[in-house]
Amino acid sequence: MTAARSDRRIGDEGRTLWRDRDGRLRTLDQTRLPFEITEIELATAADCAHAIRTMQVRGAPLIGAVGAWGLALALAEDPTDASLARASDDLLATRPTAVNLRWALERVRAQVAMVPAAERAAMAAAVAAEICDEDVDANRRIGLHAIGLLMASSERAPTPTAPLQVLTHCNAGRIATLDYGTALAPIYLMQERGLPVHVWVDETRPRNQGASLTAWELGERGVAHTVIADNAGGLLMQRGGIDVVIVGADRVAANGDVVNKIGTYLKALAARASGVPFYVACPVSTIDSRARDGASIEIEFRSEREVTHMRGVDPDGRVVEVRIAPDTTPALNPAFDVTPASLVTGIVTEFGLVEATPAGIAHALSQSQGDAGPGPERP
Amino acid sequence: MTAARSDRRIGDEGRTLWRDRDGRLRTLDQTRLPFEITEIELATAADCAHAIRTMQVRGAPLIGAVGAWGLALALAEDPTDASLARASDDLLATRPTAVNLRWALERVRAQVAMVPAAERAAMAAAVAAEICDEDVDANRRIGLHAIGLLMASSERAPTPTAPLQVLTHCNAGRIATLDYGTALAPIYLMQERGLPVHVWVDETRPRNQGASLTAWELGERGVAHTVIADNAGGLLMQRGGIDVVIVGADRVAANGDVVNKIGTYLKALAARASGVPFYVACPVSTIDSRARDGASIEIEFRSEREVTHMRGVDPDGRVVEVRIAPDTTPALNPAFDVTPASLVTGIVTEFGLVEATPAGIAHALSQSQGDAGPGPERP
Repeated sequence: MTAARSDRRIGDEGRTLWRDRDGRLRTLDQTRLPFEITEIELATAADCAHAIRTMQVRGAPLIGAVGAWGLALALAEDPTDASLARASDDLLATRPTAVNLRWALERVRAQVAMVPAAERAAMAAAVAAEICDEDVDANRRIGLHAIGLLMASSERAPTPTAPLQVLTHCNAGRIATLDYGTALAPIYLMQERGLPVHVWVDETRPRNQGASLTAWELGERGVAHTVIADNAGGLLMQRGGIDVVIVGADRVAANGDVVNKIGTYLKALAARASGVPFYVACPVSTIDSRARDGASIEIEFRSEREVTHMRGVDPDGRVVEVRIAPDTTPALNPAFDVTPASLVTGIVTEFGLVEATPAGIAHALSQSQGDAGPGPERP
Repeated sequence: MTAARSDRRIGDEGRTLWRDRDGRLRTLDQTRLPFEITEIELATAADCAHAIRTMQVRGAPLIGAVGAWGLALALAEDPTDASLARASDDLLATRPTAVNLRWALERVRAQVAMVPAAERAAMAAAVAAEICDEDVDANRRIGLHAIGLLMASSERAPTPTAPLQVLTHCNAGRIATLDYGTALAPIYLMQERGLPVHVWVDETRPRNQGASLTAWELGERGVAHTVIADNAGGLLMQRGGIDVVIVGADRVAANGDVVNKIGTYLKALAARASGVPFYVACPVSTIDSRARDGASIEIEFRSEREVTHMRGVDPDGRVVEVRIAPDTTPALNPAFDVTPASLVTGIVTEFGLVEATPAGIAHALSQSQGDAGPGPERP
C-alpha cells in the first residue's frame, strides 16, 4: 500500500479516490480486495461508469464522488450539453438505487450550467473535488456524533478485555467513502482515542463485502474484529454478545425508512427483539425526500451469478470464482431491503442524531440547507 | 444415481441410508453434494462416528439412524458392555446438540440390555432398521399433516403460474432423513398430487446446505425452486412474496422453543413482522423434554474455517475450497440458534399440529407415548 500510494497529491493522503501527481484520478479495484490490492485509473466517464457498475467502487458516498468526477472527465473531452446529458444518463443508469449518485450528478450539472463551455470541465472538477472534501469532513463529524451514542449503549465502560461489542453489516467503512466511512467512522475514532472496541462483521452475502472489505479495512487499521455468517447475529444478540448495531444506508426515505444492503432489516428485527440499539450512519445527502417511504422505493435486482458463484483464493493461491450450487439452480438476488423507521433507534448524520420520523427527517434536511457545509441541494 | 443404487435391498428404494444386497450399510457422502454423487460404506462404528462428525451424514433423523447402526456395528465386532459404552460415548460426542442421536442410542442400548451377548448385534440391527422404517413412516405422516396447513396459508388456490410460495432454511429434506424429509415432506407430497408449489431456498451459510443440498434434492425431484441469500428472505416477506415458512428442527424444548440451524430465528422474526405463518416440522423424537427452554440449551460452535472458506467447483470443473476472507481474519461459527416459541405458528409432528407451548409439547409427548408408532422413549 505504501509504495502504491507514494505518488498521491498533497491533501489526498489515505483517501479511497485520489489524484496522483500528474492529476490522474485513481482508486482501488474493490472487486479484487481483500485478495489483491490493485489500483485503477479512471481516465474517462466510461471508466467511471464501468467502475460503478462492476462495483470496483461501491458505497453511496464513493459512488457519488466517482459519478461527479465522471462528468468532469466527460466535459474535458466534450463540453457540450449533449455530452453532459449523455454522460449523466450513463452514470445514473449504473446504480438506480443510489441516491448519492443522483445528487452528485445534479450538483455538478447545476454548477456547470452557469459557466461557458470552455470553463465547464474545470468547474465540474472543482465541484467533484469539493464533494470529496465534504465527504471526508462529513464522515468525521458523523463519527464524532456517533461515538457517544455507541458508548452509551453499554452500561459499563469498555475495557481491553471487555470491549464495546458493535455489530455492522456490509461495508460502510473507509473504502465505501473517501475516508473514515459512515458506520465505521466512530469505530476508527474510538480506536484513535484508545477506547476498546470489537466489531462483529456480518459476512454480507451474496457479495461478501463484510468478510472481504470490512474485515480487510479494520485489519489494516488494527481494529479488533470477528467475521460471522449473516445468520449468526440473531443468536449473538439473544445471548447478550452485542451492545449496539450500526450500519450505513444507501437511501433514507422521508418517513425515516432505511434502504440498505440486503439483510440489514433482519438485523434490525433481531436488535429490537433483544433490546439492542440500532443506529444508521449516513450523510444527510443520503436522505431522499422525494421517496415517501421505503415501500415506494424500487429495489435493484442483481445477477443470479452473485448468489450461485463465489470468489476466493484457491489452495494454489490463485483468485478464482467457484460455483457453489447445482449448475441448473435458479437464484434471485435483491440487493437491498427496507428497514422500517420504527426499528431504527436513530440516524446519525454530520449534523447529529436524527429521529427516524417524518419530523426528524424534515428537521435534518432543513439543518443541512441552512448549513454552509455538505448536504443535498434539492428543490 | 440409478446405476449407483442398483444393488439396494428390497424395501430400501430411494432411501438415504440403505443396505446393499450383501447387507453392507451405505449412504451418500453429503459433503460432496451437489458437485459429486458419492456413495460411502459405513462398515464400523468408527465409520459412523466419522460420517456424523464430518457431516457426510447430517439432519437429525439421519444422524440418529446412523448412530443406531453404529452401535449395531460395534456390537457385531465386540458384544461386551464395555464395547457398547465406548461406541455409545464416541457416537454421542460427535454432535452434542442432536437430541435424536441421543434418543436413538438410548433406544438401542435399552433393547440390547435385555438380551444375551450373542444376540446383541442382531437385536441392535433390528432396532436400527426399525428406527429407519419408523422415520420414513413418520415423515410421510408429517407431510400429510402439513399439506393442509401450507395450503391454508394462502387465501387463493395455487395455480401453475401462481404457485404456493414456501420459504425454507437449511436442509430438512429427504437427505436429512431416511426419506421424504420433515420440512420438505409436504412439498414432495404436494408435488406428487400436482399441487403447484415453489420453494425459496435459503442458501444457509456457512455450510450452504440450502444452496447445495436442498436445491439439489428439489431439482432431482423436479420441484420448482429458487436459491436466495439468507439475507433476502426479509425483503421477500415484506413485499408479499412468501405465503408460508416451514423449517425443520434439531431440538425442541419443553416450552416450545426451537433450536435449528443458525439463521432460522431471523426468518421467524421476519415472518412474524409480515404476518407470514412460521411452521416447524419434526418428529416427536426431536422434542427434548429435559430442556426447559431454548436458553438452557448449549449451542455448538464449529470451526472458523467453515466461515472463512467455501467449497465449490472452479472454472476447470474441479471441486476446490477457496478462502473468502483475509487470511488473518478471525471468525465465530455458532451452528444453531433459538427461535422463541412465541414466534412459532405451530409444530407439525407425525401426530399432527402441536402448539408451541408447554401444554402443547406435553400433549404431543403423551400422544407419542400412548402410540405404538415412532416416538421417544423417555423416563
